[in-house]
Amino acid sequence: MHNPQLNAAGELTHLLSTDGLPRDVITQILDTASSFLEISDRDVKKVPLLRGKSVFNLFFENSTRTRTTFEIAAKRLSADVINLDVSRSSTAKGETLLDTIDNLVAMHADMFVVRHASSGAPYLITEHLHRVGRTDVHVVNAGDGRHAHPTQGLLDMYTIRHYKKDFSPLTVAIVGDILHSRVARSDIHALTTLGTGEIRAVGPQTLLPSAVESMGVRVCHDLADGLRDADVVIMLRLQNERMNGALLPSAGEYFRCYGLTPAMLALARPDAIVMHPGPMNRGVEIDSGVADGAQAVILPQVTFGIAVRMAVMSILAGN
Amino acid sequence: MHNPQLNAAGELTHLLSTDGLPRDVITQILDTASSFLEISDRDVKKVPLLRGKSVFNLFFENSTRTRTTFEIAAKRLSADVINLDVSRSSTAKGETLLDTIDNLVAMHADMFVVRHASSGAPYLITEHLHRVGRTDVHVVNAGDGRHAHPTQGLLDMYTIRHYKKDFSPLTVAIVGDILHSRVARSDIHALTTLGTGEIRAVGPQTLLPSAVESMGVRVCHDLADGLRDADVVIMLRLQNERMNGALLPSAGEYFRCYGLTPAMLALARPDAIVMHPGPMNRGVEIDSGVADGAQAVILPQVTFGIAVRMAVMSILAGN
Amino acid sequence: MHNPQLNAAGELTHLLSTDGLPRDVITQILDTASSFLEISDRDVKKVPLLRGKSVFNLFFENSTRTRTTFEIAAKRLSADVINLDVSRSSTAKGETLLDTIDNLVAMHADMFVVRHASSGAPYLITEHLHRVGRTDVHVVNAGDGRHAHPTQGLLDMYTIRHYKKDFSPLTVAIVGDILHSRVARSDIHALTTLGTGEIRAVGPQTLLPSAVESMGVRVCHDLADGLRDADVVIMLRLQNERMNGALLPSAGEYFRCYGLTPAMLALARPDAIVMHPGPMNRGVEIDSGVADGAQAVILPQVTFGIAVRMAVMSILAGN
Repeated sequence: MHNPQLNAAGELTHLLSTDGLPRDVITQILDTASSFLEISDRDVKKVPLLRGKSVFNLFFENSTRTRTTFEIAAKRLSADVINLDVSRSSTAKGETLLDTIDNLVAMHADMFVVRHASSGAPYLITEHLHRVGRTDVHVVNAGDGRHAHPTQGLLDMYTIRHYKKDFSPLTVAIVGDILHSRVARSDIHALTTLGTGEIRAVGPQTLLPSAVESMGVRVCHDLADGLRDADVVIMLRLQNERMNGALLPSAGEYFRCYGLTPAMLALARPDAIVMHPGPMNRGVEIDSGVADGAQAVILPQVTFGIAVRMAVMSILAGN
Repeated sequence: MHNPQLNAAGELTHLLSTDGLPRDVITQILDTASSFLEISDRDVKKVPLLRGKSVFNLFFENSTRTRTTFEIAAKRLSADVINLDVSRSSTAKGETLLDTIDNLVAMHADMFVVRHASSGAPYLITEHLHRVGRTDVHVVNAGDGRHAHPTQGLLDMYTIRHYKKDFSPLTVAIVGDILHSRVARSDIHALTTLGTGEIRAVGPQTLLPSAVESMGVRVCHDLADGLRDADVVIMLRLQNERMNGALLPSAGEYFRCYGLTPAMLALARPDAIVMHPGPMNRGVEIDSGVADGAQAVILPQVTFGIAVRMAVMSILAGN
Repeated sequence: MHNPQLNAAGELTHLLSTDGLPRDVITQILDTASSFLEISDRDVKKVPLLRGKSVFNLFFENSTRTRTTFEIAAKRLSADVINLDVSRSSTAKGETLLDTIDNLVAMHADMFVVRHASSGAPYLITEHLHRVGRTDVHVVNAGDGRHAHPTQGLLDMYTIRHYKKDFSPLTVAIVGDILHSRVARSDIHALTTLGTGEIRAVGPQTLLPSAVESMGVRVCHDLADGLRDADVVIMLRLQNERMNGALLPSAGEYFRCYGLTPAMLALARPDAIVMHPGPMNRGVEIDSGVADGAQAVILPQVTFGIAVRMAVMSILAGN
């Protein structure tokens, strides 16, 4: 089957999902990110790799944090960045998504960074660009519905590789609302491709997707079981809207059962690292003792995230 | 009478309207745009013509699309672009429009791109700048009320010239809500100046301004009459707010009478081009068969629009 | 006591308040601003002093005017500027202020320009950066609650020095709602440090803070008394929300008692200058005859403000 992320030569041409992303492409992205990490530490944090390119941040769903990381990454590559507040724009005037895209392509856009509440929207754009023969325009999925958030998945892989080197001996526990999490899905696909020893999905029955076991993931409803001897613990953000709905009794109850406290973390391996995609709900899914503790690598994740996004944009632009 | 757009030497110093814009100035803008068109196709889409200049996008009326085109044009000229969300700014705190302008001039603004719901607002600003002796600060009207949208008018002229070369033998049909359209007004003035053979205004009685015939325009209430043997068809966007008001029975009724379908378009000349300022209401003023058909030049209009805006800014800045 | 604005060598490392700012540091900022003033008059208004640096505008309270001045200043220093609309971002998702800061620091922020409705928020951020050992990241207070607005205070000092040279013989009258004004507080501290002859606080009892006399300021409830023989008159903006509250009978009543008219201004010295931080309420705190008159230096304040902000950012970045 045709992989819409790769061109005929097997090179990355869009980043839509970690699902179907070959191991060597993931490795290429992580290696490239490694070289960019050094740039962010320089006095002049810029390289001219995307000079004169127009990168459009198309956020159909508001996310200041994620938009900011892409804006910084693009500016450090010297691109011109245009932020489109799409909720207030022509789509609100009845224009279709693809008419908006066609218009921006006609303005000589080079890259779209797309966040959308609907799963599959970045695919739709990619297919359309392919149909109209614009293979020189690239799409980066910055999160679509419950489907995928591949740059977050890749920065998580970067983080794990940075601290643990090899994936094969690792036990990775992903804890929380996996059902609604595009981060979890992107992590599971990438971890699987990279040959992770054991992947665990830890959470209440109501927040685990029924199909997760078919992805080769071990399901744990008990947090202690899920954490025992883990090398990596990935905590997921509990969306506010879940907290007082039908799926969960309350935030307090959730913390009692699935909140990561220092005592619970002690069940994992002593050198286990704790990750979180942010923004954190302290006292809901994670205790401050852990969030600010020695095992947390949550802020390094953010730093690696800029480098990974620079790497993805740079590779897509043909560098 | 003094033309506020030109200086004593007859050079463009503000772009406020296509009304009163001399033929040689229009031609200068279109010729300059032609040279910029090539830049947008380059790998590095930038020229340093406005480096170190401060361009302020002053959008008193929200329009993400138009603001984006000016932002791209200015950035490709290497200007520093400041977007002011004026609806949320000091004017909301009771400051007058001219106090806001004075303040931005005091910050060493070089150019204002102004969109305003009130007809004449850019003129008011221009007169004020003249009064305070700041002839080095330039104003571009990005749409004022029902009055004018000169860069849209000029990009329409660019498009027609690109496909049809000479204006004198042409029949141009402008179809739709001409009463409320600043685009139609800017097109009619420019087409007239460029010596267009016949200009037709096509639409229901309620949406045609009574004074349009005095502008040398032939009025047609029947779409078939209006399209017959036309070389150029300019469709106008039907504003949502007109659709269920007193002026029109309904969007469906409008489409039946004035929507451009392939069958209707067949009445025009076989090599007729179809234009639209966007965003389109598919199935209201234009059928998808036409919008996506071989005669549509709607996306090239967008591409030409960037080049025309670069040309206007570059000429105003003295290049 | 430790001054959080200065490092061990006594150099400016954050700008939080004019309170506690040594005279030589104020003088250094004003002298540096003087050299930047000339840059804004150049054809290419840019210097590469902050090239490759990432400046974050963190406006927890909306202020288009102030944000714009910092954005212009940073861009003229060639910095990459990221505007964060914090009211719509992660803090709205329950993230703490300091988690937001930690995240941006992890993205390699070099400078934060912070506007916050709560007094002390920029201090909180500064202390946190100190605690986590990030002395390479700098904070500029762009207005916090009723507490301080140091760049406004400094540009006011620049303006006074520009027109009056020496502070010691001057009588400076600050007129209006001093109780709620961070500008007044920043002015009073700076004027005191610079050895101003006499500082007067002029306004109704309800709008003067009870502690103002302990700051060495002479209180005047009568406008004529306050203006008599003044060299400098600083008018404060009357916030709309005060005008029909319990503190004031009405805007009209306020203007009758404290509005600066040409007749009242005649009580000051003939060469007195009139200042206002903007945006002005014409006909409320100031008459148009004064605002547009020969003694007003309100627009030069704006020009000096850009130079002062460039100076502050440049000094903080180590130039």
